[in-house]
Amino acid sequence: MAEWIGIGRRARRAYGFEEIAIVPGKITIDPEEVDISWEIGGFKFQIPIIASAMDGVMDTKMAILMTKLGGFGVLNLEGVQTRYENPEEAIEKIINAPSDEATNVIQKVYEEPIKEELIGRRIEEIKKGGGIACVSSVPQRAERFGVIAKEAGCDIFVVQSTVTTIHYISKGRSSLNFKKIKEALKIPIIVGNCVRDDVCLEFMEAGIDGILIGVGPGTACTTRSVLGVGIPQITATIDCVHSRDFYYKKTGKYIPIITDGGMSRGGDICKAFAAGCDAVMIGSSFTRAYEAPGKGYHWGMATPHRNLPRGTRIKTGIVSSLEAILYGPAHLDDGSQNLIGALRTAMGICGAKNIKEMQNAELIIAPSIQTEGKIFQVFQRTGMGRQ
Amino acid sequence: MAEWIGIGRRARRAYGFEEIAIVPGKITIDPEEVDISWEIGGFKFQIPIIASAMDGVMDTKMAILMTKLGGFGVLNLEGVQTRYENPEEAIEKIINAPSDEATNVIQKVYEEPIKEELIGRRIEEIKKGGGIACVSSVPQRAERFGVIAKEAGCDIFVVQSTVTTIHYISKGRSSLNFKKIKEALKIPIIVGNCVRDDVCLEFMEAGIDGILIGVGPGTACTTRSVLGVGIPQITATIDCVHSRDFYYKKTGKYIPIITDGGMSRGGDICKAFAAGCDAVMIGSSFTRAYEAPGKGYHWGMATPHRNLPRGTRIKTGIVSSLEAILYGPAHLDDGSQNLIGALRTAMGICGAKNIKEMQNAELIIAPSIQTEGKIFQVFQRTGMGRQ
Amino acid sequence: MAEWIGIGRRARRAYGFEEIAIVPGKITIDPEEVDISWEIGGFKFQIPIIASAMDGVMDTKMAILMTKLGGFGVLNLEGVQTRYENPEEAIEKIINAPSDEATNVIQKVYEEPIKEELIGRRIEEIKKGGGIACVSSVPQRAERFGVIAKEAGCDIFVVQSTVTTIHYISKGRSSLNFKKIKEALKIPIIVGNCVRDDVCLEFMEAGIDGILIGVGPGTACTTRSVLGVGIPQITATIDCVHSRDFYYKKTGKYIPIITDGGMSRGGDICKAFAAGCDAVMIGSSFTRAYEAPGKGYHWGMATPHRNLPRGTRIKTGIVSSLEAILYGPAHLDDGSQNLIGALRTAMGICGAKNIKEMQNAELIIAPSIQTEGKIFQVFQRTGMGRQ
Amino acid sequence: MAEWIGIGRRARRAYGFEEIAIVPGKITIDPEEVDISWEIGGFKFQIPIIASAMDGVMDTKMAILMTKLGGFGVLNLEGVQTRYENPEEAIEKIINAPSDEATNVIQKVYEEPIKEELIGRRIEEIKKGGGIACVSSVPQRAERFGVIAKEAGCDIFVVQSTVTTIHYISKGRSSLNFKKIKEALKIPIIVGNCVRDDVCLEFMEAGIDGILIGVGPGTACTTRSVLGVGIPQITATIDCVHSRDFYYKKTGKYIPIITDGGMSRGGDICKAFAAGCDAVMIGSSFTRAYEAPGKGYHWGMATPHRNLPRGTRIKTGIVSSLEAILYGPAHLDDGSQNLIGALRTAMGICGAKNIKEMQNAELIIAPSIQTEGKIFQVFQRTGMGRQ
Repeated sequence: MAEWIGIGRRARRAYGFEEIAIVPGKITIDPEEVDISWEIGGFKFQIPIIASAMDGVMDTKMAILMTKLGGFGVLNLEGVQTRYENPEEAIEKIINAPSDEATNVIQKVYEEPIKEELIGRRIEEIKKGGGIACVSSVPQRAERFGVIAKEAGCDIFVVQSTVTTIHYISKGRSSLNFKKIKEALKIPIIVGNCVRDDVCLEFMEAGIDGILIGVGPGTACTTRSVLGVGIPQITATIDCVHSRDFYYKKTGKYIPIITDGGMSRGGDICKAFAAGCDAVMIGSSFTRAYEAPGKGYHWGMATPHRNLPRGTRIKTGIVSSLEAILYGPAHLDDGSQNLIGALRTAMGICGAKNIKEMQNAELIIAPSIQTEGKIFQVFQRTGMGRQ
Repeated sequence: MAEWIGIGRRARRAYGFEEIAIVPGKITIDPEEVDISWEIGGFKFQIPIIASAMDGVMDTKMAILMTKLGGFGVLNLEGVQTRYENPEEAIEKIINAPSDEATNVIQKVYEEPIKEELIGRRIEEIKKGGGIACVSSVPQRAERFGVIAKEAGCDIFVVQSTVTTIHYISKGRSSLNFKKIKEALKIPIIVGNCVRDDVCLEFMEAGIDGILIGVGPGTACTTRSVLGVGIPQITATIDCVHSRDFYYKKTGKYIPIITDGGMSRGGDICKAFAAGCDAVMIGSSFTRAYEAPGKGYHWGMATPHRNLPRGTRIKTGIVSSLEAILYGPAHLDDGSQNLIGALRTAMGICGAKNIKEMQNAELIIAPSIQTEGKIFQVFQRTGMGRQ
Repeated sequence: MAEWIGIGRRARRAYGFEEIAIVPGKITIDPEEVDISWEIGGFKFQIPIIASAMDGVMDTKMAILMTKLGGFGVLNLEGVQTRYENPEEAIEKIINAPSDEATNVIQKVYEEPIKEELIGRRIEEIKKGGGIACVSSVPQRAERFGVIAKEAGCDIFVVQSTVTTIHYISKGRSSLNFKKIKEALKIPIIVGNCVRDDVCLEFMEAGIDGILIGVGPGTACTTRSVLGVGIPQITATIDCVHSRDFYYKKTGKYIPIITDGGMSRGGDICKAFAAGCDAVMIGSSFTRAYEAPGKGYHWGMATPHRNLPRGTRIKTGIVSSLEAILYGPAHLDDGSQNLIGALRTAMGICGAKNIKEMQNAELIIAPSIQTEGKIFQVFQRTGMGRQ
Repeated sequence: MAEWIGIGRRARRAYGFEEIAIVPGKITIDPEEVDISWEIGGFKFQIPIIASAMDGVMDTKMAILMTKLGGFGVLNLEGVQTRYENPEEAIEKIINAPSDEATNVIQKVYEEPIKEELIGRRIEEIKKGGGIACVSSVPQRAERFGVIAKEAGCDIFVVQSTVTTIHYISKGRSSLNFKKIKEALKIPIIVGNCVRDDVCLEFMEAGIDGILIGVGPGTACTTRSVLGVGIPQITATIDCVHSRDFYYKKTGKYIPIITDGGMSRGGDICKAFAAGCDAVMIGSSFTRAYEAPGKGYHWGMATPHRNLPRGTRIKTGIVSSLEAILYGPAHLDDGSQNLIGALRTAMGICGAKNIKEMQNAELIIAPSIQTEGKIFQVFQRTGMGRQ
């Protein structure tokens, strides 16, 4: 597993989506008959897809819509929804900014302070619409915002930062006590992001209900180039799945693993499940829905931190309704639509009757090397080739 | 063979055409003197090339022409040939559609129901022209269409879907009984596609006469990006060849392995034989023949399934006659013409007197890494570079 | 560690920045609380970043500014600063040359002889401004220039060439006696460049105070394509770090390892520290400061050697002040600004309280394979795609 | 050395120039003092570079010039020089053909029959000019042309085809008897191309004086894509060098290994020597000399074989004199000029006093992965980027 990378030092080889493929099964199953439901913290969902807490993806309407479509979405308590009475206006500014001003404008928009009264209001809006109210905050505000959210009727609470650990060393503030917050809120808590099996295990032991896997893989996330930190998602998922299975064997408690980030096509999602995850969190793919607040743009999980911006505004374009992205019909053939249909078909091909069986599908290392032909195809698609 | 890809989980490394090269032999042979004939189900063919069941490649005239040129082609019983009295009109619609409408138009064209009376008529047209009548259907309609085809004089029957297995689990329909259909039709049956040695063996044990190898490698096939499923062709071929040889040693029956998909140049075809196959199935390369119905376009094996399109319309352009693509003279130097000449020359260089000897040519792992120079060359060819 | 690359011959696999990622730690730390100071030859610096001796990066004003910002810079005694009374004019010629004339113009500019009286003057200018006076020369002039520099008040002396070794065979001149020069100058001496652990050790034994690691990795350096010589920086750093630790264990003397070249983004710098270095030398990133003499251009460490030019003029553009490049605020999200912030954040994520702890961060092999999507993104950024 | 590439089948990993780098030496040497001379068949040459038998590179004037510059060139007895009284005219047609006609025009030009009387005339022209007369033919005409050439004063005879072996099976003609031809001609004979150690050994045992290594690596050579056959040059060179050393140990006879093809930059040439070769054969790089007959174009070793063209016309452009390409001064920094200077410098950096010592320089596996940055640079160079 570990190669020598210099005298006296070894490193493991990690794998990402583009280097892995799923091996078809020995038997196949009718895709209509596979079961893709899953459970977390007592909630059962028809589809194992969560919309991520990006301001370009989630607002209260999207939260309601995701619930109707069988999954749920996470509303960011530190994004425009709690900074602005009228978040649409803030978003307009971002998507209308000229390209070279976008990072600056994003930073400015997020300088507006959070208004705590808006936390409750957003949750109530979601609940009123029949949606699962799932909201997120960074660890430093999780205790305070968690209580407010709980009171407003929050169903699931997410504590999320680039890398979250049980132990955080700071003179300024003590580590968030995950055990305590879990006991205080008494609702399911999802924590992330995480890529280490040992940290995963610590979260499980602290009573956390679900763990978000992924550091640095998203398209709007520049963590790996800015910080050099990151683990490709297939290996990160497998490592954390190992802790999930170990903890389950030891305690009988099954804590779902949610692969978050880097999946731009149906094939990537299928691979995440074959790597063992229980659900996936999708961001940029959903910005292509006309219902998404970003109107064809997204900018990761940008924060007002002027010093180290790590969210780029990326134009994805609007292609269809959220329902079509999830359930088809697909009018594009690039794997960006009918994600559920793709998962069902892949499970059928693998002979996997449910998510648990899909977690055991065989994987193969099969790098998608850029051949001359493929680069040429990219040219053609972008209208650059001659033909 | 297997690498660790995460804690507690290993995966094999699979290889595709672009990562492999053939090692020249210790002796060489005059290319004119190598024997490239092969047999399947009692039929002997002068060249080991089959034209694939794509509507852009095969119509009744192409089936006749392929036979005259020493091979044969497969007519898709679920494509435009059986949906339309006048399939040329349907194809016109597809190739005249604007780029962003192409997937939609393809879906619409394939919504027209299949007319069973056209099955017999197409087969008769081929037979009248002196062609080998080889037709294909998906497993769910194989029993019904097989009988109709057999009665009309069909020579070889192909049962083909993205991934076909002996066992198919569905409440709606039972698995196709391959043994039964083989006994009923009493003509050679080819089944695909398949990439697993164990499934291959099951097909051989069921009495199947030839197996199509390949999931997801074709240029018009987006299976790998949409579903994440696929095995690079060199490894898939070698694995299934292993089952062929095992089965032959055990039973004395030799069931040909046909590598299908992903071969765009003569070199890829040569590599498939060096990996051990008995014949190759060619699709997109043949759309460049002016006799091909697609007139320089193809769109994989598109089906009317609105939900998950996996066939892209790709423009290949028309470059020459089918005869020139197979036998030269080559006016292009990209390996797309004179495929038979390329195979003969490669066999000569490897000192292989026939296909069986070519199956034992030495392979070497030699990735074609994209160097700066090569990317530059692509630019030049596409007219993008300065020079 | 070594693979067979042909019959009877093996080679080690070496790794560069783009193939490696840093694994987040089991605990995390507040980035504001990590200590990034380091020491060399008795000098203590607040930040572990040295500006390289490129004429497009360093003049006397930049040397003063680097000191104020917590680090230091190296002034090249064989560049325009000692060839011209008014070096700005020479630089103007280079940056105003048309593209196809640039290499020629650079060669001409550097034909002007070095004026030894300018050595003292430049050092005095730096000292007067309160800067650390660190200057460099090639080995053949190190003895002569070293004495002049020392007399003028030089603080740190750098002996640098593409590849420097203790033993140099030439009829024309004997090897530079590093021990002797060290004793003569009695100021800290940094030597480079070097990529071998054994040569590193020899320098340490000769009393050298710091070693520059890197052959051929810089963006303006074409050593690897022109000469075929070079070692990717992660492996080169780890190898030499091994000698540092060995020498420290043996003698109690700790000789800092300075990774020099190839780091274009914050992430690369963070990886260099995780590979074990004590400081990094930055060149091209600093040409983007408006204070840099190159005004958005650099041309490596071009020498007047007409025969084998190995420095290309590259346009980097001006993006901000040197302070912003080091400390932010970042207005770009590509990792080129706020390098110190990036290092602090990465150390926080790795739970590293200081550089010594960061040197032990876990690395993982995680190639950044060019996927179709990424190439597409490059197109979009360069304004070439359709969208 | 061998990896599993499928069930029951293994393959060696082979390496090319772009995946390998040279490790600097523990000592360094003054480049002016290294000895780069070499010997073949009793001839001693000052530089280990041979100009290849491409019609775009070699005519009688170039043969004379190469000799004056310390090496020699090979004139193709089956190219335009022996087909046309006035070969310049034929070449004009090729270089003036429109892009999409080039392959056709090349084929037509080479349909003109060879005039045997021109063989003697060309050799005499070279001898009159004081040049080493080295000419080449394919194996099938080697006996006949060899005798004619010998009589005309030929110094060195080259027998060359894509892949040449001792044993050639054909009803039409028997294998060339290399032993017999060697005895008949009594001048040094070079044979190629070859990539196998065992074939190499057979040639040595037959009394051959030098062996050309390389199948499929040249820029104008499409062997690998058309035929799938080829071995990357580093591995091919090392393998054949192994036979040279084995044969030398056994017999005391030292038969030089000449790496032929795929070296576009100085760095590649340096790597070939570090892989163990005694000399290199250069083609496309020399078409950039204004003295080359191809005037900035080349088209490999095109033959009149209409069926399987494997030579593309490639524009390289004219950059300088042949002397400058070999000895500098270099006005470009891409490694295409001053190849001898590059070799001397690399040898100096490796501490290699002569070619024999350079053959033992350490190699390292160091893939030049295409990073986003590099692709961007290609864009910039081609004038495609924004900047």
